[in-house]
Amino acid sequence: MPSELLPREELDRILAAEAPFSAHYGFVVEDYSAGTARVRLPYDDRHIRPGGTISGPSMFALADFAMYIAVMGAIGPQALAVTTNMSIDFLRKPADADLIAEVQLLKLGKRLAVGRIDIRAEGDRDLCAHVTGTYSIPPR
Amino acid sequence: MPSELLPREELDRILAAEAPFSAHYGFVVEDYSAGTARVRLPYDDRHIRPGGTISGPSMFALADFAMYIAVMGAIGPQALAVTTNMSIDFLRKPADADLIAEVQLLKLGKRLAVGRIDIRAEGDRDLCAHVTGTYSIPPR
Amino acid sequence: MPSELLPREELDRILAAEAPFSAHYGFVVEDYSAGTARVRLPYDDRHIRPGGTISGPSMFALADFAMYIAVMGAIGPQALAVTTNMSIDFLRKPADADLIAEVQLLKLGKRLAVGRIDIRAEGDRDLCAHVTGTYSIPPR
Amino acid sequence: MPSELLPREELDRILAAEAPFSAHYGFVVEDYSAGTARVRLPYDDRHIRPGGTISGPSMFALADFAMYIAVMGAIGPQALAVTTNMSIDFLRKPADADLIAEVQLLKLGKRLAVGRIDIRAEGDRDLCAHVTGTYSIPPR
Repeated sequence: MPSELLPREELDRILAAEAPFSAHYGFVVEDYSAGTARVRLPYDDRHIRPGGTISGPSMFALADFAMYIAVMGAIGPQALAVTTNMSIDFLRKPADADLIAEVQLLKLGKRLAVGRIDIRAEGDRDLCAHVTGTYSIPPR
Repeated sequence: MPSELLPREELDRILAAEAPFSAHYGFVVEDYSAGTARVRLPYDDRHIRPGGTISGPSMFALADFAMYIAVMGAIGPQALAVTTNMSIDFLRKPADADLIAEVQLLKLGKRLAVGRIDIRAEGDRDLCAHVTGTYSIPPR
Repeated sequence: MPSELLPREELDRILAAEAPFSAHYGFVVEDYSAGTARVRLPYDDRHIRPGGTISGPSMFALADFAMYIAVMGAIGPQALAVTTNMSIDFLRKPADADLIAEVQLLKLGKRLAVGRIDIRAEGDRDLCAHVTGTYSIPPR
Repeated sequence: MPSELLPREELDRILAAEAPFSAHYGFVVEDYSAGTARVRLPYDDRHIRPGGTISGPSMFALADFAMYIAVMGAIGPQALAVTTNMSIDFLRKPADADLIAEVQLLKLGKRLAVGRIDIRAEGDRDLCAHVTGTYSIPPR
């Protein structure tokens, strides 16, 4: 359920205008609310490493983008939040499938938002990566 | 439900013999299995910072100890696993109450175990700290 | 060379009043400036794990305290900076000797200070732990 | 000075065969040895975010690749080391210039290599990002 602060049409407009890299990766925002997000990275040759695995930088980009959506869902689109830290544990090689990132904000303060992002290959129970991210929220 | 690899009496014997610092902190292992643990840090003047908050090092010690229990529950007591990384996000000042750490192993490989540890003041829903830990598992 | 913002007598007065845990650990502030600090943790039975190694929580406490000194050296004592993240890589077992932490602030913004802390056993070249820390700086 | 374990021609051959993403980013390996590396990311529209800044995922890719070179310089090309953790602190917006990553391995064990990677815009003294990375080294 999209958050009241950020209706779906508004989100789509922002992403088209300000996040063209989102189209480069093919990210699909499947769901979001004030503090959560679920984003899909379609399996595609562009993100594949030798050996067939989706690359670390693509997982990083997915986690960062999903966190950005969850923060925007919580504070609205006016603010330009920026990533201050991302820490990724790569746990296992993902299956050859789309990747799904699920974000949960653990803290939404006046100045910092902290979230964790679980990344799985679609259909898998086990995580292929576990990410913790911090965003700095600008004064309003 | 204690893990088959590590019955409760065995755990208590190991902690008494090899982890006297556990007694210093007063840690109480409330539950554990092959890959999970719940450990309590009683509220006590020894762990309090000026201002009444349980100190960062005490939360670190709690997270590290709880992770150690979850790893032992999963691989048994014979192996001497050691911490290689701990990353802590301090999210909010805990209430003046016991702290509870809950561990979930995200990966148990031949060489590395990775887990996340949620720390809450008893009775709170929100986390006061979110921890990610990695243990190196010795060859068996 | 102590920073102009924080003369040595002022630092000592603050630590005596507000950081009694510093005395518990026996920390010695050997040097500091606006953005650096060198702090010693004397080798002492209280910090020793079974096997003779200085414990992880003691290294955490040392890193956190040293970072606090470097931040105070840079912004002065009036502000109550708080730790928001600490990430520690434990690299090797330290020798049975005092530990020395050396901090270098990498960023001192209006809202966040980020630093890295190298921990060595005295006399060793190699690090026994590498720490990255973030402090939130209150509005002034 | 390239390491004896990994002569320059050998490195170039490996990168051409196994790391085509390196060409995608345009990475230039400027220097490396057994445990260090300096790698350049040319400023290019492909890596630019709205606002003109090189994107976080590009910095991640640069750090990860530079770490990979430093590890290969230290253990030779036969082994397929994999990233297990990367933690990035984004410190300031880089200037509109090439980015330079400098790696120093802090630990090279039998099973894990840990390094830190400083990222700067060319010509700047201050870091724009500070990265800590861990690689798992396969049994030999």
